[in-house]
Amino acid sequence: MWSELRRIGRDADSGGYRRHAWTGADADCRNWFQEQAEARGLVYETDRNGNQWAWLGGPPPASVGDTPTPASGGTPTPASGGGTGNVSASGRSTPGAPAVGDAVVTGSHLDSVPDGGAFDGPLGVVSAFAALDELRRRGAEFTRPFAITNFADEEGARFGLACVGSRLAAGQLTREQAYALRDADGVCLPEAMEAAGLDPGTIGADPERLARVGAFVELHVEQGRALDVSGDPVGIASAIWPHGRWRFDFRGEANHAGTTRLADRRDPMPTYAETVLAARREAELAGAVATFGKVSVEPNGVNAIPSLVRGWLDSRAADQAVLDTVVSAIEQAAKDRAQRDGVDLAVVRESFTPVVEFGHALRDEIGRLLGGRVPLLGTGAGHDAGILSAAVPTAMLFVRNPTGVSHSPAEHAAEDDCVAGVLALADVLEGLACS
Amino acid sequence: MWSELRRIGRDADSGGYRRHAWTGADADCRNWFQEQAEARGLVYETDRNGNQWAWLGGPPPASVGDTPTPASGGTPTPASGGGTGNVSASGRSTPGAPAVGDAVVTGSHLDSVPDGGAFDGPLGVVSAFAALDELRRRGAEFTRPFAITNFADEEGARFGLACVGSRLAAGQLTREQAYALRDADGVCLPEAMEAAGLDPGTIGADPERLARVGAFVELHVEQGRALDVSGDPVGIASAIWPHGRWRFDFRGEANHAGTTRLADRRDPMPTYAETVLAARREAELAGAVATFGKVSVEPNGVNAIPSLVRGWLDSRAADQAVLDTVVSAIEQAAKDRAQRDGVDLAVVRESFTPVVEFGHALRDEIGRLLGGRVPLLGTGAGHDAGILSAAVPTAMLFVRNPTGVSHSPAEHAAEDDCVAGVLALADVLEGLACS
Repeated sequence: MWSELRRIGRDADSGGYRRHAWTGADADCRNWFQEQAEARGLVYETDRNGNQWAWLGGPPPASVGDTPTPASGGTPTPASGGGTGNVSASGRSTPGAPAVGDAVVTGSHLDSVPDGGAFDGPLGVVSAFAALDELRRRGAEFTRPFAITNFADEEGARFGLACVGSRLAAGQLTREQAYALRDADGVCLPEAMEAAGLDPGTIGADPERLARVGAFVELHVEQGRALDVSGDPVGIASAIWPHGRWRFDFRGEANHAGTTRLADRRDPMPTYAETVLAARREAELAGAVATFGKVSVEPNGVNAIPSLVRGWLDSRAADQAVLDTVVSAIEQAAKDRAQRDGVDLAVVRESFTPVVEFGHALRDEIGRLLGGRVPLLGTGAGHDAGILSAAVPTAMLFVRNPTGVSHSPAEHAAEDDCVAGVLALADVLEGLACS
Repeated sequence: MWSELRRIGRDADSGGYRRHAWTGADADCRNWFQEQAEARGLVYETDRNGNQWAWLGGPPPASVGDTPTPASGGTPTPASGGGTGNVSASGRSTPGAPAVGDAVVTGSHLDSVPDGGAFDGPLGVVSAFAALDELRRRGAEFTRPFAITNFADEEGARFGLACVGSRLAAGQLTREQAYALRDADGVCLPEAMEAAGLDPGTIGADPERLARVGAFVELHVEQGRALDVSGDPVGIASAIWPHGRWRFDFRGEANHAGTTRLADRRDPMPTYAETVLAARREAELAGAVATFGKVSVEPNGVNAIPSLVRGWLDSRAADQAVLDTVVSAIEQAAKDRAQRDGVDLAVVRESFTPVVEFGHALRDEIGRLLGGRVPLLGTGAGHDAGILSAAVPTAMLFVRNPTGVSHSPAEHAAEDDCVAGVLALADVLEGLACS
């Protein structure tokens, strides 16, 4: 299963993956998903936003509003007789409001960043199928509906916005906003979806579908070294750090690099450079992260003082107050140096995601199912699970990454740890969905 | 004359010029040159490298080796009778070696950097035609052959190498090297020349043509503020500073910007930033200039720690020793920081032009012709005159630039100063080429 998938969308030169949404490599991954689903007798479907679903025994009825089937944040009461009936539990359902469904869903995404690694995303989908195989080997009987998913366009490598499939489903991205997304070649999202054989006319919030889900569990390779440091193969997510992106526009004056006296320059490059160093310094002081990974320069000529340097800051911290402090200090350092360099500075917050604290009920239940010896850890990365947590009870499992390297061809997880991840996921699914 | 030329190749948005070699805007400029030449009864020709020449009374005989016609570095003895015969003077000609011709040539270039100004290049060509008009008004009689030139592809905006036309003519760029030049779209130089209606099969060193030239004088807008500071409308070039370009490759490790601990990073962006600040600092200390105007980042994603930051350093100084000191100090600062950041550094010198000291004989003669009150000034910019100075006696006049701004739409010279430049050039040409 893994070896087939590994061949798709891999660049021969870099060894990295280029599985960008709605490209040929992405289609190959999606075909692979459908084949895996059908090979296991699962009922395959694509939702209105292009996310793939593989249902054990078919999807549950769309309308659950009439039946009392709430699941209380992932702490279902196991059905005593092992039937497939609805779990009865005290829950959050309010008369008239959409009820919370009882389906247990697991999965992740198959798309990649440019020159990404083999594990970020695919490990969660492969582990989902492998965990189902393990549960069948154990003879487990499912008492709740069960599905495996592949969320579309998680990385946002092509259209610049992450988690498009889950954002649309959860109503955090409107159809109009999605229609306005364009890739670097000017192709807009609906055109790209249509070219991939989907109907972009249907995209948008999908509350009925999400209302079927009682628990979503996403397994993911860790993107840091916390598990390596603690010595555990598997961990449970506590929270996703608050996270923002800020664009710094440093505007100076284009001029000749050979003949303009230093005193006469309004060169925005030193201003940018000082800001990069301030970002590293402030993040170190605060125990946060801050990165300038993307830069654009005009006119970008060897013998021309730039008129514009544009740098993007990505910063994340364990809580909101720390993040605010770090970003304010970086902005202040940029302003001070801009004044000295005669440069105009504008800072625009391009995106912001507040802290996502995963529901404690499901998280604690998973901890119990894994024997109570699995560490909790926060993460700086965004995930579909973070988006969905606003709409359904959600949890995440992490698999150890010995180097912490991610979004790179060198991203890796040991085979033993991947197996441990599959077994942990199987334990969790058995506890949640089987009698 | 000026108003017609000003319309060509101007970008409506930026107000800057985009007259890149062998493009449509360049062809329009070249047509303008031919029209101006023919309107004045000059004999127009294009040389084997695409440089344009407009000869008063037609080009002199190609072979000058048999006739004693040396001009001694721009100090011709005025012919007493005002005839058009060869000037006899003691000179550098050696029996058997190509003789130095007696033609007096003036001109500059018409191409531009991206979003360049109206003056850099065109002022020298327009002033050449205007100076000829002035000399005719004065009734001056030419006793030496005279031509106005437009050198091709001086800025190197399209193919990345400056002064291609003069380098080819002077044998400082071989045909093979020129054939290997490609623009950003992958079009190679011979293809571009062919598309512009030229025969790229003939390009290469042109010693016979240069042997006809006894003095080349290029008028150019100043690209600094020395004349503004000294209060003079016109100056004479003493030297072109030594000048080099170095590519700094900072290689780190691509990784996730949200999840990679600062301690685990090998981020080349702070290394680059520290190097930019070191360049500014070292140039200030030494009275030189140093600029990072061009950067390229991989993968250049907002949420990715870069694997590679590539920055180009342009540095120039009044003499070689100072330049060496500045660049060594910048390299050392880059190395120190690279070690701290776990980043690999490679520095490649991509180009280097040693100091060009304009011949004192012609320079002093011009000073006398202008009444001895014109200041001498060095410049950090390269010019066709700098290239040609290796092959023929060469001098430059500068016209005051009140802001020093160059290579920008804001580049400017006052009308009075432009007129002063034309009159000074006319005085020089009259002294050198007329009885």
